[in-house]
Amino acid sequence: MKKLLILTASLLCTGNAWAMTPSNEPIQPILPAKITAPEKVELGKKLFFDPRLSRSGFISCNSCHNLSMGGSDNLQTSIGHNWQQGPINSPTVLNSSMNLAQFWDGRAATLKEQAAGPISNPGEMAFTHNLAVDTLRSIPQYREAFKQVYKVDKITIDEVTDAIAEFENSLVTPNSRFDRWLLGDQDAITQTELQGYKLFKDIGCTACHNGPAVGGNSFQKMGLVEAYKTDNPAEGVAGLTGKDADRFKFKVPTLRNVELTYPYFHDGAYWKLEESVDVMARLQLGRQLSGEDIDKITAFLKTLTGEQPSFTLPILPPSNNDTPRPKPFG
Amino acid sequence: MKKLLILTASLLCTGNAWAMTPSNEPIQPILPAKITAPEKVELGKKLFFDPRLSRSGFISCNSCHNLSMGGSDNLQTSIGHNWQQGPINSPTVLNSSMNLAQFWDGRAATLKEQAAGPISNPGEMAFTHNLAVDTLRSIPQYREAFKQVYKVDKITIDEVTDAIAEFENSLVTPNSRFDRWLLGDQDAITQTELQGYKLFKDIGCTACHNGPAVGGNSFQKMGLVEAYKTDNPAEGVAGLTGKDADRFKFKVPTLRNVELTYPYFHDGAYWKLEESVDVMARLQLGRQLSGEDIDKITAFLKTLTGEQPSFTLPILPPSNNDTPRPKPFG
Repeated sequence: MKKLLILTASLLCTGNAWAMTPSNEPIQPILPAKITAPEKVELGKKLFFDPRLSRSGFISCNSCHNLSMGGSDNLQTSIGHNWQQGPINSPTVLNSSMNLAQFWDGRAATLKEQAAGPISNPGEMAFTHNLAVDTLRSIPQYREAFKQVYKVDKITIDEVTDAIAEFENSLVTPNSRFDRWLLGDQDAITQTELQGYKLFKDIGCTACHNGPAVGGNSFQKMGLVEAYKTDNPAEGVAGLTGKDADRFKFKVPTLRNVELTYPYFHDGAYWKLEESVDVMARLQLGRQLSGEDIDKITAFLKTLTGEQPSFTLPILPPSNNDTPRPKPFG
Repeated sequence: MKKLLILTASLLCTGNAWAMTPSNEPIQPILPAKITAPEKVELGKKLFFDPRLSRSGFISCNSCHNLSMGGSDNLQTSIGHNWQQGPINSPTVLNSSMNLAQFWDGRAATLKEQAAGPISNPGEMAFTHNLAVDTLRSIPQYREAFKQVYKVDKITIDEVTDAIAEFENSLVTPNSRFDRWLLGDQDAITQTELQGYKLFKDIGCTACHNGPAVGGNSFQKMGLVEAYKTDNPAEGVAGLTGKDADRFKFKVPTLRNVELTYPYFHDGAYWKLEESVDVMARLQLGRQLSGEDIDKITAFLKTLTGEQPSFTLPILPPSNNDTPRPKPFG
């Protein structure tokens, strides 16, 4: 919050368009990504799309965080190596740089740390960091790119995850209709959508869904007023701390692009945004909303769809006779 | 061949750069794609990347014909629904418009016909045409796009496969170093590569690998002089005709971008281009090449890597409450 206030202040001083941001709103507009190291972003983009970071040679970061589909896979839980069913819903990679931590339980402090997880997770990409790095080291174009970008002769997992994280840092979605409204364009959203936003604030959704990402900045118990019924065994933060107080405590997901990131909740059990709004109001706030109010809030939520990252599909450098071969079957 | 001669003649008349094409070479340069219906290409691109054409919601055309990886999956055989092992190596989609027919056994006459196959193949995308069409019909942005492009109120599989084929028609790879050499740039390839090309012609590779795609324009028996040893049960054209003369008769694959489309042959059994050259020379031509000659031909083959299709990753319109849900598990 301190950082944001400083930012707002500095923007006010520069006198540009951002200075028009209503300072009294709990949601702030997303700023375009500041890309300071474009060559890292380009390298990270290749790695994000490269299925050779998986044992099968078939699964890439983009498989479960599909940038054609809101940075998610739009499945209840993901498909991993050998078609294993994942334990939890794949969170969107869009605007993930704004999360206070990564994964639903926050077990990775940074995007860089997160990126290392799926590669070696036996249920996801099922590879090892060593084999992933061996694969990249065998490819002259990758060796050259890492040398140019990181000044290293030998690629390690450290540079690999750093580049992926740099690419992910670029995946922000500014200029949603709601952001344009925040910045002063009164016509950017309809009266119904505005009423939905007012309801969203009035009933208390913004207690957790606030900031530029409209979430992602706190852990909260799922089922605060009323218990959440699910077959999914995930325990949230308690899985890390072992504390009973942390049971079903999950990172509050961002609501940016929520129209694109169905199905909803950590178990992906709800496909309809309207139902999800209803569940949240009842379980977290003890409110039974009317159908009309649910529709208004849903209409507001759809104004949070921002400009999707736009870039040329990366062309990957080919394997060669020295490259370890993928092992999709057995 | 007739078409090509007419084309060459017409180009000679126009007096442009293409007129410099050596008319006595068995390989012709690839011409850039002539896109007459860009709106079909754009729609087809979305469909090509849309995993909602599969039962799981996870597998798209691009999964096995990955345009980041030479239009192939670089696996021995592909991964289908529920991680089923495919029966045959996935051929590249690049320059596939130049094939005389589609699939290794040529069972689809056109790209449009081919596109319908994997969607409903239980071992691949495992969907039905009806469900795929239902999915698209539920999405207003797709309905609108099909209406604009095809003037139809109701999407059918016919327009879906037509649009995918139109996109695939655009996936040609001109301007390889070899094509630049064909067009008169003497320095575009090295002396070793040129020697490799001469060998390629002299020993008879061009009997089958000729034309702009350096293949794709005839069916030939795999193992003409010496039998090809494989565990793969595919019988080629005989699987369609039942004729013994058609056993192991397969469409000659294009050698364009062959550096990118490993592993090789219909069973994907060979990962090294050098080994593949050796096998072909022995089994098809009865020639035992020296290591030096194999290296020269391999060097030539790598000059066939053309400009890869370059385009912005498509953003897919989201599903909604009316969209049938994917069924990845069970």
